[in-house]
Parts: sequence; C-alpha cells; structure tokens
Amino acid sequence: MQDKLFFASDYMEGAHPNILERLVQTNLEKTPGYGTDDYCESAREKIRAACCAPNAEVFFLSGGTQTNSMIIKYLLRPYQGVIAAETGHIQGHEAGAIECGGHKVMTVPQQDGKLDAVGIRKVAESYLQDDNRDHIVMPGMVYISQPTESGTLYNLRELEEIRAVCREYNLHLYLDGARLAYGLACPGNDVTLQDLARLCDVFYIGGTKCGALFGEAVVIPQPGLIPHFFTLMKQHGALLAKGRILGIQFDILFTDDLYFKIGGTAVAHADTIRKKLQQKGLELCYGSPTNQVFVRLADSQRQKLEESVAAGFWEKPDAEHTILRLATSWATTEEDVQKLLEVLDSL
Amino acid sequence: MQDKLFFASDYMEGAHPNILERLVQTNLEKTPGYGTDDYCESAREKIRAACCAPNAEVFFLSGGTQTNSMIIKYLLRPYQGVIAAETGHIQGHEAGAIECGGHKVMTVPQQDGKLDAVGIRKVAESYLQDDNRDHIVMPGMVYISQPTESGTLYNLRELEEIRAVCREYNLHLYLDGARLAYGLACPGNDVTLQDLARLCDVFYIGGTKCGALFGEAVVIPQPGLIPHFFTLMKQHGALLAKGRILGIQFDILFTDDLYFKIGGTAVAHADTIRKKLQQKGLELCYGSPTNQVFVRLADSQRQKLEESVAAGFWEKPDAEHTILRLATSWATTEEDVQKLLEVLDSL
Amino acid sequence: MQDKLFFASDYMEGAHPNILERLVQTNLEKTPGYGTDDYCESAREKIRAACCAPNAEVFFLSGGTQTNSMIIKYLLRPYQGVIAAETGHIQGHEAGAIECGGHKVMTVPQQDGKLDAVGIRKVAESYLQDDNRDHIVMPGMVYISQPTESGTLYNLRELEEIRAVCREYNLHLYLDGARLAYGLACPGNDVTLQDLARLCDVFYIGGTKCGALFGEAVVIPQPGLIPHFFTLMKQHGALLAKGRILGIQFDILFTDDLYFKIGGTAVAHADTIRKKLQQKGLELCYGSPTNQVFVRLADSQRQKLEESVAAGFWEKPDAEHTILRLATSWATTEEDVQKLLEVLDSL
Amino acid sequence: MQDKLFFASDYMEGAHPNILERLVQTNLEKTPGYGTDDYCESAREKIRAACCAPNAEVFFLSGGTQTNSMIIKYLLRPYQGVIAAETGHIQGHEAGAIECGGHKVMTVPQQDGKLDAVGIRKVAESYLQDDNRDHIVMPGMVYISQPTESGTLYNLRELEEIRAVCREYNLHLYLDGARLAYGLACPGNDVTLQDLARLCDVFYIGGTKCGALFGEAVVIPQPGLIPHFFTLMKQHGALLAKGRILGIQFDILFTDDLYFKIGGTAVAHADTIRKKLQQKGLELCYGSPTNQVFVRLADSQRQKLEESVAAGFWEKPDAEHTILRLATSWATTEEDVQKLLEVLDSL
Repeated sequence: MQDKLFFASDYMEGAHPNILERLVQTNLEKTPGYGTDDYCESAREKIRAACCAPNAEVFFLSGGTQTNSMIIKYLLRPYQGVIAAETGHIQGHEAGAIECGGHKVMTVPQQDGKLDAVGIRKVAESYLQDDNRDHIVMPGMVYISQPTESGTLYNLRELEEIRAVCREYNLHLYLDGARLAYGLACPGNDVTLQDLARLCDVFYIGGTKCGALFGEAVVIPQPGLIPHFFTLMKQHGALLAKGRILGIQFDILFTDDLYFKIGGTAVAHADTIRKKLQQKGLELCYGSPTNQVFVRLADSQRQKLEESVAAGFWEKPDAEHTILRLATSWATTEEDVQKLLEVLDSL
Repeated sequence: MQDKLFFASDYMEGAHPNILERLVQTNLEKTPGYGTDDYCESAREKIRAACCAPNAEVFFLSGGTQTNSMIIKYLLRPYQGVIAAETGHIQGHEAGAIECGGHKVMTVPQQDGKLDAVGIRKVAESYLQDDNRDHIVMPGMVYISQPTESGTLYNLRELEEIRAVCREYNLHLYLDGARLAYGLACPGNDVTLQDLARLCDVFYIGGTKCGALFGEAVVIPQPGLIPHFFTLMKQHGALLAKGRILGIQFDILFTDDLYFKIGGTAVAHADTIRKKLQQKGLELCYGSPTNQVFVRLADSQRQKLEESVAAGFWEKPDAEHTILRLATSWATTEEDVQKLLEVLDSL
Repeated sequence: MQDKLFFASDYMEGAHPNILERLVQTNLEKTPGYGTDDYCESAREKIRAACCAPNAEVFFLSGGTQTNSMIIKYLLRPYQGVIAAETGHIQGHEAGAIECGGHKVMTVPQQDGKLDAVGIRKVAESYLQDDNRDHIVMPGMVYISQPTESGTLYNLRELEEIRAVCREYNLHLYLDGARLAYGLACPGNDVTLQDLARLCDVFYIGGTKCGALFGEAVVIPQPGLIPHFFTLMKQHGALLAKGRILGIQFDILFTDDLYFKIGGTAVAHADTIRKKLQQKGLELCYGSPTNQVFVRLADSQRQKLEESVAAGFWEKPDAEHTILRLATSWATTEEDVQKLLEVLDSL
Repeated sequence: MQDKLFFASDYMEGAHPNILERLVQTNLEKTPGYGTDDYCESAREKIRAACCAPNAEVFFLSGGTQTNSMIIKYLLRPYQGVIAAETGHIQGHEAGAIECGGHKVMTVPQQDGKLDAVGIRKVAESYLQDDNRDHIVMPGMVYISQPTESGTLYNLRELEEIRAVCREYNLHLYLDGARLAYGLACPGNDVTLQDLARLCDVFYIGGTKCGALFGEAVVIPQPGLIPHFFTLMKQHGALLAKGRILGIQFDILFTDDLYFKIGGTAVAHADTIRKKLQQKGLELCYGSPTNQVFVRLADSQRQKLEESVAAGFWEKPDAEHTILRLATSWATTEEDVQKLLEVLDSL
C-alpha cells in the first residue's frame, strides 16, 4: 500500500518529532515505573494548568477503547447504562467493549453525530415515567465525543445545555476527546479545555490521533470520583510498566502549547479538500468542520478513487453508494493534499 | 529519586537504542493501523522463524497483565480455572485481573517459583476423584512463567514433564515470558524458543522488560486456537491504533538475534552482585540464576541499603526481615554495578 | 389491592392444582438433589417425547430472565452479540441482564413484536459488508419469543424462513417460550413443540406463566451444544438444591397433555375481552391473538379503569394516552371476566 | 436409590407440612408479582422483628450460591476481594461463582471450618504493609458461615472479635446462614438472630435446608447498603415473578417460632449418630455439634456403608480413607435413625 496516497485515517504516522526527540534524550534515564515518575507528574501538572483544574486527577491510558471501557465500567453502577448517539464510537466501533464491561449502551437519535439536551431528557423522562422502571436499565451517564465520530463539534451553549440536563437527572457526563486537538484548532470552535473541565465529570485528551505514538490523558476534575483507579488500571491490564513513555509524550504535547497548535494545518487541509469536493458537485456528509472529510460516492467513483488513494470505509447508505472518510492529520503534507486534489479532479 | 542507584526493577529505562533509531527513521511513513502494517508482518515472520513455527499466530499486546488476562480469559471455558503457583504473577501481582475475567486461580504449592508435574497431577486427580466435581471449578489450564517470578528457570525435562501431564489431563499450557530474554541468556538454560513453541499452547515473548519501550508478543503455535482474537483485543481495549509501534520494536528485537543477546550482560551483572552478597554472608533467596537477585536483609540493613539504592520490596518473611529484589537489565551499566557493590560492602 | 380485579399479568396466582397436589403427595420422599432425581428424569422424558427429540438435553431453571441470560451468555462467543426485536424482553425488560453477561443486544425493527427473515438478513449482511467488521460485534444468534412480548405468534412459515436465514449466516436460533402454552392453545397457531425442536438450537418451555409455581424447561435438541451446562447453572446460582420441585411440576404439566390444554380458557377469555373493547371502539394494539390484550386508552379512561382493575402499564405512546395490558391466565375465572366486561362497558 | 437410607444431605425432602398447607390455602389468590405482595411483606416484618432490626431490608432469593454470588459481587468494589476459609463454600463448592462475578476469594487457614480474628488481621495487615499494595487485591469483606461447612459454630465472643477486626480494617462482614436453623437449635449455641443483625453487614437466613421448598432470606440491617438491589436481582435472573412463593414460606417459618424449633430433632438425631460412631471407635471429624456428622472411614468400610446408606462424599484425606457426611434434617425420622445405627453397628 506504500504507493498510495494515505487519507484513510489520522493514525497512520508515528509521533510528532518533538516527542521522539525527547524519548531519545531521556532514553537511558532510570525512573520508577507505573506512571509514578517525574515526567508523568510534570505532564499532569501541565494538563491541570491547561484545564484550570488544579485538583484534577490525570491518568494516562493507551487507547480510546481502553479508556472508554474503563471509565464507563467504573463510573456506572451495575444497574445503570450509558446514553450515547447511535453513531457513538462505543456503540458501533468498539467490538462490544462496553457490554463486555457489563453495561448497556442506550442509544438515542443523533444529528450529524451529536446528541442534544432534548434527546437526553427524553430518555431520562421515559425511565422515570415507566411504572416498571425497577425492571429496566437506569440511565446513569451520557457519552459524547468532541469532535464527534462524524467530525462535528458541540458549541459551548450545547454543552452547557447537556450539562444542565445531566445535573437535573443525576447523569454523569463523559466526553471522548480522541481527536480533541482537531476540535480545538477549528476556527469555529468555542469550547476550551477549561470548559470541558468545568462541564464534564470525566473527559480524555486524545494523544494517539493528535501527535503521540499512542496514549490518552484521562482528566477527572473532582478527585476521588473513581476510587482506586490506579489499581483498576492494573486489573484491566491498562497500566504500563514504563509509564513514563506516556508521561513524556503528554509533557511534550503540553509544552509551548503544542497540543493547541498541532491540529491547525490538518483542519486547513481538510477545508481545502472539502472545497474541491464541493466544486466537483460531490455530496459532503454530516457537516464536519474538522480534520475528517466525509463524502458520498457512487461505487464506480469509489473504485476509481481507491485505485490511488487509501480512504476509510464509513457506511453504505444504499446498494450503489458508499460514504468514505478522507482524514488529514498533523503530519499530512501540502504535497499529498495537492496529489489528492488531482485525483479528485479526475473522478 | 534520581540520585539513587536504581536496581528496583528491569523496566526503569526506555528502549534499546536500535529500537528508538528505527522509530525515528520510520516516523513519517504512513501505514495502515491496528497491526496490519508491513512492520508487524515482518516481526511476525521473524518470530515464526525463531520459533520454527511457520503457522503460528503472533499478536502484539502492550503489557504482561493485559496479556495474561486476555489469554486466560479467552482460552478457558467459563467453567474452568487456571492452575498456578502460589507465587505466580497472576495470583498475587495483577490486582485480581484473572478473577475480573471470570476465572479462579487454582494455586498449588511451589518450589522457588516453580510448579512441577506432580503438583499439577494432584490438582487434576483431585478434581476427577471428587464425586461432586460438577459443582466445582474444573482445572482447564496451567500457567507457568519462564523465568519465574522468583527468577528461576524450568529446564527442558521439567517442561516436557509438565507438557505430558497437561496432555494427559486435557489442560492447556500457557507460559508467561515477561523476562524470557534473561532466561534465554542464562548460561545454564536449555530451553529454546523452538521448545516453547512445541510444548506450549500459548506463550508470550516479553518485550517491556527485555529492551522494548513496551510490548509483548503472543505466540499461538496452532492457529485458530482462540478464534477472532483480533476482535477480542479490540473489545478489551488492547488493540493499538498505531500497531506498527509494536511491530517495529519486535522487528528490531528479532533482527540480528538481538533478543537472544540482550539479556547477557544483565545476567552477568546479576551474577557479580550475587557473588558479592554471598561473600558478605547475606542470604540469597529462591536460587535465581537470572537477572533478578533476591536477598534477605535485616530491616536495619534494608534501611541502610535503601538510603542509596532503589530496590524492590518482595516480602516480609518475619517482622524483622525483608526480602528485597535487586534487578539488572539490558541497560544496567558496569559503573552502576560497581557502585552497588560498594554499597553492599558497607552493609 | 385485594379488592381489585386482577388482570395485570399472568403470574398472579399459584400453581395448577394438580401440581400442588403432587407436591403434597411426594413431600416426604427423599430424593437426591440438583435435578438428579427420578421426577426430573421423568419430566425430561415426557418433554423429549412431546418434542420428538429423543436426544435432547432438558434443564430446569427458575425464571425467564435467568434462562435468557444464561443461554445467551453461554451460547454466544465473547465477540458475538444477539439479534433481537426492539421490543424483545431481553432488550427492554431484563434490567441489562444480557449486557451484564458481556453481550450486546443488536436490535432490529419489529412488527407487532416480531422479527422477520428480511430484518435478520440485513443485520447479517451489514456485518459482512463492513470493511471494519473485525472492529465490531459479530451477530451470533437470533432471539425471538413465541408468543412475543406483544402477544403475537410466528406461524410455521415465518419460523422456517428465520431458521433458513440463521443457517445461511451461521446464527444460532433461540426461542423464549415464557408463555408458550398460550401460543399452543391459540386457534390459529400452527407451530408445534416438535417444530420448535426441529427449528431452534435452544428454546424454553415456560412454566412460571403457564401453570407452575415457577420454573422453565430449557430444551437443547442437539446434546452437547453448551458443554457442562450443569456446572454453569451452579456457577450462576441457578441450580436448585431440591431440583425435584421443578421436575415434579413439569412432570405434571406434561401428564395427560396438561400443558397443551392449560392455556385454552385463558385465550378464550382474552378473545371475549378483545371483542368487548372493539365494541366500545377502543383501539387494540399489536394484534395479539393470545392471552395478552393490549389497549390504548386516554389517560382519563386509564384512571377510571384502574380504580377497579389492576392492569399492566405497557407504554406511553404520547402524553395523553397509555397502552395497558390486560392479561388472562389459566386461573382466570368466568366471573372475573364478566366483572371486567362491566367495568369496560362503563368507560 | 429409593431403597437406601438417605443421609447424604439435608435437602432431600420437600417442605415442612405447614408450608405446603399454606401454599395450597392461598393458591388461587391473586397477588402482585416480584415480592411486592402482602405475604412477602408479612414475612419481612416477622424477620425484622425476630432480628430486632426494624429498618432492615429483607430480600428473598432462591438458593445459597445465588445469594453468596450476588451479595459478594455487589457489596465489594471492583478492586476488592473476599476473605474466606479454605473450606468456605464460596471457595470450593460454588463452581467459581465468586470469580465469575469478578472477585478473588482470599483464603486463610481455618480450624474446623472457622476463621478467627487473628487470621483476618493477618491478611489485612499483610495488605497494608505491602509496598506494592496498589498492584494487588484489597481485602474488602469477610465471608463466614454459621454453622460452617464443617458443621461447627462460632460463639458470640468469636463473632464479636471478628466484627471488631472487620471494623478496624474497614471490612464488610457477611454471614452465610444456609443451615442457620440447625445452629440456632444447637444446645451450646449462644448466637441469636439479633446478634447477627447487630454484628453483620449482611447475612442470610437459610430456607432451602431448613424446612422450605427453596429460598433464602437476605437481611441487610442498615438499609441502602446495596442500592437498587431489587433491580440487581432482576438483572441477575434472581427475581421470581411469583415472589409470593418465597414470602409465604418464610411467613410460615417465622410463625409460632417454627424456624427456631425446626432444627431441634435433627440435631438430637445427629448426636445419637455421633455417639454410635464414637462407640464403634470411628473417627469423627471437625467437631460438629450440629446436624452434620463427619466420619473418617477406611474405603472398605465406606463401601459397606454405601451399600445401604446414601451418604455424602466429603474428601479423601489419603488414598485408603474417605471422609463422609451423614446429615440429618427436620424431616429425618426416628425410624431411619435406628436403621442407620444398625448399619453402623455392622461396619
């Protein structure tokens, strides 16, 4: 596949060069294990500062599904389920990880990957009004992602409304930030890390797709919300012996505002691609303003495109069409974008 | 802690320099995700060749507890448990990961961390002779580690005997090779990778403690033994998006026999330390010939040692003594060993 | 509530008098425990005969949710989910029991509580056509109920079609027969126990709602499908010490065709009630021909009805209406039906 | 087996005649389901009164393993395990039910089936003194049984000591009363239901082995300790639709002090058997004063005994001997005891 243009996803390269450089510099230093080293502590401090959440607990995990399944499993009580969009990553793309942890994903209709306060209230009210509610799953948590799986963003007002309905119905709010850097870099975005720390019970700052080799930083603004999370990480097989590998990466990502800048060119490249697709009269889907571009192609067009471009399969809206994803990343080059535009021109 | 001598464990440094170099070289290449890239495939081929197991399935996971809990969970049937030494890592050091996966650890007495065929047979026979056996846990698997948690090694004859008793009683044999490189490098060792592939149903080749940043390579000699293991990795949160990070590391570890050489100096250093301890009349424990040194100290000696040396707590055999671990690694320097010897001299 | 007319459900009385009589007769006999007694064996033989399935395994469990969660948990592989109607009991009425067992319920649209082969095929095809299918839950089983939660029945042709699509896509077929006696007694029914044994991988014959104090008989036509199910029952806490209590009940239910007759008057009474509701111009829902009657009432009518009748809450289609269930049982008397008709007349 | 003398266990007969009589009397009454009926409420009130625990929550479950696995699963936090005797029912006789629920059974040495405060303190201290305690299972609960699996009884002082050590180390205390009636009826017993309600966080009053068809009454003296336990029962498949069946049974067991009297003759018969065994010079095991008699026999004696007596296999202390259990129950007759004595005389 090495001769194709790679736009299938945003996790096809290694790490931001600053990260590798730092790993090399520190390689032979000896540190204690399991995230108890100074690099991890430094990264935690920087993240707390960036979130204006001085008491927050910060844990480093290896990937998004691991993070989602652990947070949801240990934040919910056994009689509760998690509310998510039908398109939520935990519903359709994690091989049943949430159910494997014992909990139902309670899906609600979505618009371009987003939930809203109205939909959440409906589920909560439906539970309360059901005379048989002691026989059914209690909604205990709302799962959202920023950006969503469809590349869209919640604005601050929407998040505030969701927070309000969560408070009203005693639901935890958990936000999956696998691609958060691309949201933060989006011109239209008005949601800051500080907002997330204020509004969410738990959220995570994505590293894997945003410049790290791998790694996600879980932020729990109110410490103690999940007691003994360290031991639970061990139990789940999510505790790296050389925890510093994760600490060093996030320390670099939060040095000189790298995390806030790293998504910028990716979003700009995605905009360029979107413009081209629109010029060609092709249908953009979901209205993503971030680094993911979704386009509906006739299967003949898809076949032609995939001769020279590695794109991501998204869904088949009907027998003759496919929705594909073209994703840019912090590492996408101007040159590759130009080549892609040429291919798109030829469709 | 940076001013101390670090002998607490063998996972205190980063990675072998060859690995970092390769990560840097390949950093901006684009590859498909989830371990489907060419680096992973190359690493798999080299491991298959080293094991003389051309059909083996090889999967890359992130750490030992993750590997143990997944293999044991998915290899056992729900009515079965796993036989392990009382000192087995899964019994005492994994925060209940095996039970969290639904299975009982059936402990048997051990000698210096090792099980033997006689002890296994006893458990199997006791099950078969129990009139109420349909009401109890069926032994379904034997878990051993090479080297053991106590640093000792099985010889080939012992492994053959264990294999034979496993076959007789229809038990899977699973070997945890978290520190396998230090076993392979041990002068007295007579067990090869090829032997393990022939004798075990599943085993893993440890990376984290043997030169990698992180990572373990699971080898399943008979393909298909655990169907859909890829999906199970996803479900467990154990599938890295940038799977190549693991592939590149194991590709290097199995280039130019690095894995077979990497443990050599560590074992030699450990021997030097053991000699010194014996000269001092201190009691070595468990008879480890590998990179882990266990010594029984009076608590006053322990306190003195820990002023300048970071050692690992092992156990308290009584109120006045502690058994500590001094571990060397592929990265331990001659210089640090000399400094340690001086400290030991002063006890 | 003792002064109300009870039509809330079909599990409000004790057991068919023949059952109690037999429990009294045999009370002081001594038998071995855990379902290994002669009464259990006799019941198993009668059920095998009634199903024309001489090799079938038959197990006695205590209730429907217990049965569903055990069969689904142990029949599915860990990477699989179960296809069910949105209205399926396992989806909305079992407090998350299936997810607690580790599996996703994959809902499909339904018509009056019924799935069809087309809907199942769609799910199976969607999985197969998804390029990312190794990252998602594999459909492994179809769950249906006869009668359905909406009181409707599959006819033989529909079941044959579902069986065919299950075979084509390698899906187990599991049928929940909690109210099977009321289906078998329905004039329009053309599906026999023998058909179920031929078409299903597992099904259960409901006792709790069909004349027993409690108990469900699981039938596994091909023995060995779920190995060591006895031990799994023990592990799940589903194995009664005095297993004979279940054996005696099913022995009586399958003596002199009691199980095939017991639902008859209940269905006739339900027909009478349906006729009355239609005369009154009230809207019957879902088209149930069995012992469950569903009616859509304005909330004012609901309130009036519930002054003298205990009915079952079903759902709120909108803010001003409620769908209620009126259920008859083998124990419903002519007298109570007449009183109910009078109440309905007054609405 | 009908021609043998049955002393294999105490769950070989049906129910106390008063219970069956009441089930017959109330059979056609209509009640709401799931334990919300008046019979259940009456039984709960009587149990609260008997325990002098006016606020206690009381739930009715179907069997001992179901009860143990639910209470332990939902009372422990996911990072905790349960301390039990090596001979505890949850360790060796429940097919891995506790581990299936995700938790480790942390065994401690026992004496005649009993734990003591010293052994519990040792486990708790060992955890606290382990520098790596965040990597291991935290003890969260103590499981004991009264009478124990070996038929022995805790006296009040021992229970008070265990309670004190539990309080000191923040451990829940849970008591399994499967055979509680036989303990309460024992001449030497000084532990009352009121004591249990004062000392335990949760305990259960056994019905299955003490006069009921089936059923155990869980008592939680401090309400709210396990939130939404009703829903958890549903989820686990432990909620009977016709909950009244359990309510009626416990209502009778707690009418006219039946539960306190029902074990009396069984204990007296057991004493007679023990006397005979001692006269014969046979070795009684464990020192049980309750309805279970344990005797060590040469295998030739065992074979002879089992020609005419159904006894329970217990364990094989060596290749030539077996320990058997002879259990009496509330239903054991004078006549059967005499016959047994004759058989024993002939050994």
